[in-house]
Amino acid sequence: MLESTAVTPRRGRPGHDRNSMLEVIVQVFNDHGYDASSLGMIADRLGLSKSAVYHHFASKAEMLEIALERVLGELERVFDEAEAQTGDAVLQIRHVVLEAVQVACVQQQYLTLLLRLHGNSDVELRALERRRLLTARLRKMFDAARAEGSLRDDMDPGLAARFTFGLVNSLVEWYRPDGPDTPEELATAVLGYVRTGLRVNETRDFR
Amino acid sequence: MLESTAVTPRRGRPGHDRNSMLEVIVQVFNDHGYDASSLGMIADRLGLSKSAVYHHFASKAEMLEIALERVLGELERVFDEAEAQTGDAVLQIRHVVLEAVQVACVQQQYLTLLLRLHGNSDVELRALERRRLLTARLRKMFDAARAEGSLRDDMDPGLAARFTFGLVNSLVEWYRPDGPDTPEELATAVLGYVRTGLRVNETRDFR
Repeated sequence: MLESTAVTPRRGRPGHDRNSMLEVIVQVFNDHGYDASSLGMIADRLGLSKSAVYHHFASKAEMLEIALERVLGELERVFDEAEAQTGDAVLQIRHVVLEAVQVACVQQQYLTLLLRLHGNSDVELRALERRRLLTARLRKMFDAARAEGSLRDDMDPGLAARFTFGLVNSLVEWYRPDGPDTPEELATAVLGYVRTGLRVNETRDFR
Repeated sequence: MLESTAVTPRRGRPGHDRNSMLEVIVQVFNDHGYDASSLGMIADRLGLSKSAVYHHFASKAEMLEIALERVLGELERVFDEAEAQTGDAVLQIRHVVLEAVQVACVQQQYLTLLLRLHGNSDVELRALERRRLLTARLRKMFDAARAEGSLRDDMDPGLAARFTFGLVNSLVEWYRPDGPDTPEELATAVLGYVRTGLRVNETRDFR
């Protein structure tokens, strides 16, 4: 489920299909912010004329929409998988955390873009709404975890869902594809942190 | 330690001291991104002429620098306090988490600004370096916590420090000053999450 979303290039120009262009475009958005990124800056970075860029994308908003679809689509797929639909809630949460960490690593630039949206356009508002729905789905799992007794009684399920996504999302700040930690190792570490980050000594209550 | 950093206004015009202007300016930066925020946009939002704005701030970079100083100064103060300097490392970490959550809530807009920096100017690079130093200081505490046996053996201190700041920082995304949770309640909840977010049932290992 971690493959890139297939986007059919409008034209078979090698090296300039929409997917590889999008990688560069998202980097421009993340370097300067979406609002400050001009078509001129994008064309420069791609080494293309503006009209060549327009051959592949109708507008800056279309670039944004396709980029956001990539990461939102992946995250929604994680929740749609069988492991997130049936069985103990605590194991569903485990599945979502492990897979979401990997999405965060593999789609790092796309998730960064999503996390920095300002909500100044319809495309942004729709993406933010989808993000809210993902948090609501995780929250339902925490509700179920509490009902089955696998969430501490004093932990609010809504806060637990937000904290968990906050933790996963923070990976985009410092994850490096060249290591030292692999996405799999980070997924395990995040899960360990969620489970019991700090040991409570019996003689020294941490509260 | 949570009062606003005192900034002396250059002139005693009521309602337009630098502190209250800064609140509005940071909101503009966060709404559009720092790079896309023009002096014209800032002046409009303040209801002032550009020259009136220049009377209070020499440049957009100066606005950014003062705004970042506010949140970075607060966070550095948390680490400089006696409770973060002496005693068990696990209690030092507790102090930092509790106080940093409150800074995140009280200085929400300023922390949002810090977290979204792109590093495109000297002011931004200096702020990012100070942010890195804060993480390094927290990491040292986790090193010490491991040495004293209050961090799980399988938890890397560097990852624990990053995860902890990631968790605290994520508050800026959804914290609302008008409730339902107070900064104090959120601080306790974050600490609870760090400590043991999800219960490990003895019959069902979460790993």
